[in-house]
Amino acid sequence: MSVQMEIICVGNELLIGKTLNTNASWLAKRATSLGATVKRITVVGDDVDEISAAVREALKRKPRFIITTGGLGPTFDDKTLQGIAKGLKRNLVVNEKALKMVREKYEAYLKQGKIEKVELTPSRVKMATFPAETEPLHNPVGTAPGMLANVTGTFLIALPGVPPEMEAIFDESLVNVLKKEAGKSGFFEASIYADHIMESNLAPLIDLVMHDNPHVYIKSHVYTKSHPQVEGQRSHIEIHFSTTAENQETAKAWLDKAIAQLSELVQRNGGKIRTQ
Amino acid sequence: MSVQMEIICVGNELLIGKTLNTNASWLAKRATSLGATVKRITVVGDDVDEISAAVREALKRKPRFIITTGGLGPTFDDKTLQGIAKGLKRNLVVNEKALKMVREKYEAYLKQGKIEKVELTPSRVKMATFPAETEPLHNPVGTAPGMLANVTGTFLIALPGVPPEMEAIFDESLVNVLKKEAGKSGFFEASIYADHIMESNLAPLIDLVMHDNPHVYIKSHVYTKSHPQVEGQRSHIEIHFSTTAENQETAKAWLDKAIAQLSELVQRNGGKIRTQ
Repeated sequence: MSVQMEIICVGNELLIGKTLNTNASWLAKRATSLGATVKRITVVGDDVDEISAAVREALKRKPRFIITTGGLGPTFDDKTLQGIAKGLKRNLVVNEKALKMVREKYEAYLKQGKIEKVELTPSRVKMATFPAETEPLHNPVGTAPGMLANVTGTFLIALPGVPPEMEAIFDESLVNVLKKEAGKSGFFEASIYADHIMESNLAPLIDLVMHDNPHVYIKSHVYTKSHPQVEGQRSHIEIHFSTTAENQETAKAWLDKAIAQLSELVQRNGGKIRTQ
Repeated sequence: MSVQMEIICVGNELLIGKTLNTNASWLAKRATSLGATVKRITVVGDDVDEISAAVREALKRKPRFIITTGGLGPTFDDKTLQGIAKGLKRNLVVNEKALKMVREKYEAYLKQGKIEKVELTPSRVKMATFPAETEPLHNPVGTAPGMLANVTGTFLIALPGVPPEMEAIFDESLVNVLKKEAGKSGFFEASIYADHIMESNLAPLIDLVMHDNPHVYIKSHVYTKSHPQVEGQRSHIEIHFSTTAENQETAKAWLDKAIAQLSELVQRNGGKIRTQ
């Protein structure tokens, strides 16, 4: 039984196409490599109702993990903690542990001569104003702490949107939890490339190999950097194999078997196989 | 009343972090510039139930447009049309117009000497197997047609996942529909950059300007290319302004006013403003 995860990214900049969602792909890649299965990624704007709806909908699907990114900072439009509180029907309260973390950051800035006095202004206290009964997660590189809640079997985790902060909190506080929960470190992926065969002719061959190798997922992409897919030009096709097993050795063995079978089928049908 | 849009991206490669979701940001940017408001982006895997659930949930929120990307190709794991059919509770049928489009592609490949005969194999007919009562959209650069359905007030549109194909269908078939529906071409955005002020001190100033300029959306980002947000280091902060109005002149005038007000406030609080 796989450990399921959903990712919720909060930010108007994502919805107007200003920012590429690199946080979602970083998290998806890391979580997958630790054995989790990401089932859904949702992007909503900086809006309390949108955030709370997305959180409630995700909770109903009962994944083991929900990770949100963005909206934890000091400004008015950082609304993730409010959205989560509304979604969980919990009050927002100043979290003393989180406030201590924020204060320590400003005390460190003071020592380093970067600020002249430590003032816990409303904007700064906001970063420690959490839904009730949640825990802060230490932010090794920025000011706003992350948040962890345990909601009837789901770990609900809020991370900042600034990529190095999100990544640092994930690595410091979540990797071990995920490893323990997912318990599989055997995600493995590999690609081969096919020439002289059209994707529509490759399709039934892939179907056959997936049928014979039920743990292996195979996906073909016409392999173009910037050119359109013109099937008739017999474009190179990337064939991507991936699987998750108990360990790397098993995963690799599964992939090797599927790759060998498909390679033979492609060649028998007039195609050529390259490994890169 | 803004014209609302949702985007649903289909593809396991997005959920394992193999592929950055550039399709979502391309669509979001184009739709926003044409006056639409993207409310949500959802990413699901190549799974009929996941796709149909995402489509049904989006339809319930009654946006004017739902655009899906990915999953229209000839292979087994291209399941978007099946997912949409299930979501709409409609049968899958061979769409004669779509089949004609597919056949014409292969006839053109034949003429160009790229294939030796035109065979409508099951994998190729699959690309023309549509939910009942939908229309194909001509694909100027690839084989698989797009799909357009009108579902009780929502345009539900399926585009391929190969970026140049998605973009070509959007530009050929959807830009005019969107322009007509959204009717506003006045999206405008601009950024200024602030130094010598901390984000937590900037926050109340942004709140004030947003209050005075209700049509203008302002968002601050600590401006780092690859460095973490260390507030105490008085990092450069990008302040991004955006708005949508009836026309470009009005939008620009709104932004200019908000930028002038915030610039003055920042300077009065010891910060410096740069335009890049």
